[in-house]
Amino acid sequence: MKTGGDVFPRAAEIAQRVRRGEWRAAEVLQDTLHHIQANDGEINAFTRITAARALREAEAVDRKVACGEDPGPLAGVPFAVKNLFDLQGEITLAGSKINRGDAPAAADATAVRRLTAAGAILVGALNMGEYAYDFTGENIHYGASRNPHDLSRMTGGSSGGSGAAVAGGMVPIALGSDTNGSIRVPSSLCGIFGLKPTYGRLSRAGTFPFCPSLDHIGPLARDVTDIALAYDAMQGADAADPVCTDRPSEPVSGQLADDIAGLNIAIAGGYFAQQMTPAAAQALARVAAALNVTDHVDIPGTAQARAAAYLMTNAESSNLHLDRLRHRAADYDPDVRDRMLAGMLLPASWNIQAQRFRHWYRAEVLKIFARYDLLLAPATPMSAPVIGQRYMALDGEQMMVRPHLGLYTQPFSFIGLPVVVVPVISAGAMPIGVQIIAAPWQEAHALKVARQLELQGFTSPIPPI
Amino acid sequence: MKTGGDVFPRAAEIAQRVRRGEWRAAEVLQDTLHHIQANDGEINAFTRITAARALREAEAVDRKVACGEDPGPLAGVPFAVKNLFDLQGEITLAGSKINRGDAPAAADATAVRRLTAAGAILVGALNMGEYAYDFTGENIHYGASRNPHDLSRMTGGSSGGSGAAVAGGMVPIALGSDTNGSIRVPSSLCGIFGLKPTYGRLSRAGTFPFCPSLDHIGPLARDVTDIALAYDAMQGADAADPVCTDRPSEPVSGQLADDIAGLNIAIAGGYFAQQMTPAAAQALARVAAALNVTDHVDIPGTAQARAAAYLMTNAESSNLHLDRLRHRAADYDPDVRDRMLAGMLLPASWNIQAQRFRHWYRAEVLKIFARYDLLLAPATPMSAPVIGQRYMALDGEQMMVRPHLGLYTQPFSFIGLPVVVVPVISAGAMPIGVQIIAAPWQEAHALKVARQLELQGFTSPIPPI
Repeated sequence: MKTGGDVFPRAAEIAQRVRRGEWRAAEVLQDTLHHIQANDGEINAFTRITAARALREAEAVDRKVACGEDPGPLAGVPFAVKNLFDLQGEITLAGSKINRGDAPAAADATAVRRLTAAGAILVGALNMGEYAYDFTGENIHYGASRNPHDLSRMTGGSSGGSGAAVAGGMVPIALGSDTNGSIRVPSSLCGIFGLKPTYGRLSRAGTFPFCPSLDHIGPLARDVTDIALAYDAMQGADAADPVCTDRPSEPVSGQLADDIAGLNIAIAGGYFAQQMTPAAAQALARVAAALNVTDHVDIPGTAQARAAAYLMTNAESSNLHLDRLRHRAADYDPDVRDRMLAGMLLPASWNIQAQRFRHWYRAEVLKIFARYDLLLAPATPMSAPVIGQRYMALDGEQMMVRPHLGLYTQPFSFIGLPVVVVPVISAGAMPIGVQIIAAPWQEAHALKVARQLELQGFTSPIPPI
Repeated sequence: MKTGGDVFPRAAEIAQRVRRGEWRAAEVLQDTLHHIQANDGEINAFTRITAARALREAEAVDRKVACGEDPGPLAGVPFAVKNLFDLQGEITLAGSKINRGDAPAAADATAVRRLTAAGAILVGALNMGEYAYDFTGENIHYGASRNPHDLSRMTGGSSGGSGAAVAGGMVPIALGSDTNGSIRVPSSLCGIFGLKPTYGRLSRAGTFPFCPSLDHIGPLARDVTDIALAYDAMQGADAADPVCTDRPSEPVSGQLADDIAGLNIAIAGGYFAQQMTPAAAQALARVAAALNVTDHVDIPGTAQARAAAYLMTNAESSNLHLDRLRHRAADYDPDVRDRMLAGMLLPASWNIQAQRFRHWYRAEVLKIFARYDLLLAPATPMSAPVIGQRYMALDGEQMMVRPHLGLYTQPFSFIGLPVVVVPVISAGAMPIGVQIIAAPWQEAHALKVARQLELQGFTSPIPPI
């Protein structure tokens, strides 16, 4: 990259240099587009490059700098978004073939608008699992996103392109969505940081929904500062998403260096200590050791919580897709279609029971947060499977890869807790992530601890490409 | 009644005289108990008289007055509650046989506690339709409540005992619950005032639920001032009901005399102009004429709104009753059991669709409230049917009485709007009510207009008993 020796410049560095006039945003953009062109043929993270728009916006940032105007805290920072975010003039594919017939979006999604207003430069839309109903990053219409650390392996999903684009150094920041783990699973498998904020913290307006009761959006990045910068820029009430909180923004990026000595942390045991591979267990142990955490807490009802989340997802998504299932069933990925059709047959009483259980489980977990500020759990039971792999062995049992990659993520999004995934690397092994889970609205706790871990060497690995 | 010439003293008068020491609360109570004893054998409004507790509380009020302490704004006012409100030491029957095996309630429901704290005297629990799934006031276990204006006729339900106890002058204030119309239907058929507040305004803590997404509680009384006094005493946040608003209380009783000249009022047309009997049409026309209202507005989607409310009720209530249906199906009223069993078979997607429609319908109705402060609609399509009557003719079509008495109430509770029912009397005819419907949190608008109508002669009739 002309703009520096590092082929993976961080958002914070780009913004700082662009704001100082040391780098031009248009130049950063050209480097970014070259890097994408050189690598994305193999990685398949992008479904669309928005070069003309990006150039226009980069030049606008450069003009502001030249005129002495504030170009924003993310000035010149390239970013890309899962293709379920509306981009003005583009069709919102949501990973599907069916949506190709939709009209282009009239306006950007709120999150895109806010990042752009902060000076960030949108460079494109990213591959994803069809309609977000996926943990693999595979897609029968657009091909699988490929893991930059081993192109034969999965990125994880459904924000697979987001994980791959960031891990592959093509953009410092990507946005994804997370209903049951779709930010955290690719963060884990691609060896990057990812934030699923508190349910309702960030506006989902202008995103293609999957299961509105559980849908979240959030950033993925190669370091914690960049996660925090993107998160801060996207915070704030939004009447266009009735779920979005009207709590005032709580910026975190200025507090990452705060002392974390006062935070009580425990390892989630019980359910979370089962079914993991040695790689996941070792990753968790390393993070716990780095933080001197020895307490274990059991969260009762977690297996049922996951079942309830699965059921709600199934019921709500199938209802959202009712018309498409009636008229375009043949155009779905069969793995998605079968789930949707099954969802149509669920009794209402089961879904209501799941929602009632959600209240109970949330109350149980909040009791634990009265004693601890943060919990640690593996992000995925294993590191990235090979693309096409259907089964994996967990605790000696053959389990389907597609649903069970979300084994450890699903219970937390079910009750809307904020979670940061931190990457863990072992020599010669694929990366794997650990979840830092906070109480509702306490994103700052999880991000500060993630930052401390980063300073202790839990950093995003450079892929071999 | 020894305490005055009027056999139907109002709550406001009782409280005023008790506070001044002109009447003793214990004396008011004795008169009340005598009146209940003399009349309730025929009317069948009460399932339990709490005489000992009442006497204790009345004496406590009298002691406060004697000591110069403030005995509260409802000092000495007798009241009774639908038997789904928890009363300490009593079994919460909820109109059922099955609940007879339950443990007595450990504490009063929040609403009962607040009225008691305001000096009101609980005298008993009231008959109701089984598990509130009813619009008739009939009950196979406890017998039908009988309409004080014609003992062969229905009270309406499910708060049938509440309507009958108030209309029969046995208590000036009763509490009911309203999921689809269960306060408003008996108010209409019994010729009294009733308030279903905004969804979330009054705490439901300590009440036996029916369909938590739609359940409301509220007061029934023979005049508007008493409705407002009871409503004011029950307002306020309550952590024990997560749906209860934390908005500050907005007392109304001091504002009933306010000028209503600035309020824009329209008649709900379309759906609400169909299927009503001449009696309902005339009642509506008389209220509209008294208020000089000539505008009509159509609310699109109202037939679907009612269907959606019906479906949500069916799905949620059947889930709540799951265990009882499994083990005690034979002990249900067959009319209730059949609905519950049908509810178990509903697909989740239908219920989700109903909830999505609810958001749409609410938004449509809020657009109308941008132009109008209040809407008028009939409360019931007809005046009280004969007890046991299964069918009624509406627009020449034979329709079932039990579900269709709620034809006009169901669409408004579906979206949580506050409604006051005002009684309308024609010589020689049974009373019938008109709904005054306000925007969310604007109970005061509806109550002020009800008060003006009352001053113009829309008063609760004295029954022949």
